[in-house]
Amino acid sequence: MSRGKSFIISGPSGVGKSTILTELMKKRDLYFSVSATTRDPRPGEENGVHYHFIDRETFQKWIENGEFLEHAEFVGNCYGTPKRYVDEAMEQGRDVILDIEVQGAEQVIALRPETVRIYIAPPNWEELERRLTSRGTDSPEKIRQRLERAQEEYKTAHAYDYFVINDSIENAVRELDSIMTAEHCKPAERYAQLAD
Amino acid sequence: MSRGKSFIISGPSGVGKSTILTELMKKRDLYFSVSATTRDPRPGEENGVHYHFIDRETFQKWIENGEFLEHAEFVGNCYGTPKRYVDEAMEQGRDVILDIEVQGAEQVIALRPETVRIYIAPPNWEELERRLTSRGTDSPEKIRQRLERAQEEYKTAHAYDYFVINDSIENAVRELDSIMTAEHCKPAERYAQLAD
Repeated sequence: MSRGKSFIISGPSGVGKSTILTELMKKRDLYFSVSATTRDPRPGEENGVHYHFIDRETFQKWIENGEFLEHAEFVGNCYGTPKRYVDEAMEQGRDVILDIEVQGAEQVIALRPETVRIYIAPPNWEELERRLTSRGTDSPEKIRQRLERAQEEYKTAHAYDYFVINDSIENAVRELDSIMTAEHCKPAERYAQLAD
Repeated sequence: MSRGKSFIISGPSGVGKSTILTELMKKRDLYFSVSATTRDPRPGEENGVHYHFIDRETFQKWIENGEFLEHAEFVGNCYGTPKRYVDEAMEQGRDVILDIEVQGAEQVIALRPETVRIYIAPPNWEELERRLTSRGTDSPEKIRQRLERAQEEYKTAHAYDYFVINDSIENAVRELDSIMTAEHCKPAERYAQLAD
């Protein structure tokens, strides 16, 4: 059995990432990386399922021990991707999905340059605006902020390995599935299988 | 419409390449590059379908005019891949299959480093020997020569982009199909589609 690979999936809020990943996980056996956080659990959130809920002291210790692939602070709470669960899954031959933003992805690549980066993009910015509006959860001002942030982030994503355009869920899932299959055909994994 | 891409498909005699490519062409619209040759047509071979049959003088002129992606001489006859049909297909947005050997592939890469190289390999050498034997067309001595040549060629193929192992036709076709889909998600083609 060959070792699993890890895939960073990034994309702006409203692009449809969670729908795509839910569909993809029906087709492939994937470990979806669970983040650690110092924030309190919300009602219905389970430890180890939605997040690993840890206190600040533990979070700090994990940073010092090099136990994170990436970590960051948002509005007073710490979030990070623990290495151990990712590595366990990969050793079991499972591919890993890291659902993280472009800045976090840069931290992961600095540690593990072999990680594959995939950006899920909307067909165009008007369509992203339409999707954000139709969710009905954000004010027009908030939507404008999200759009600006998405456009800024996209500019920094040019080094990604692949761009999947979510013009339809079916198409986006097919492309992600293909990328993962193709990555397992790379020489680093395959060439030595045929010895002489 | 985006420009087509070109894919070099190499692999040893007996690996099942033509069966795989026939199945793949049922799934994707591909232009299968037709070689030019100076040898005489065999019964049933059509000009422009099996080969472009040209005389030595024309072949030499095409070399001088840089009209080949690669060319070589085998047992007194010249064979080459003309650029023009490949380019026409790519301009029409069609992907192109170049069915050529590792040495020819090196010539293509020297001219067009963006060409994707895929090697179709048997699961192991014993299986390739079994397939060559079961075809019943070659003497044991000829089979031994083909095997040795395949093993030598494989050593020089380590720079290929992808290795597809033909353990089953279905699997090999799925992997080739995935590689082509994935290659169309690369930033060179995709990133600029989402302007700001």
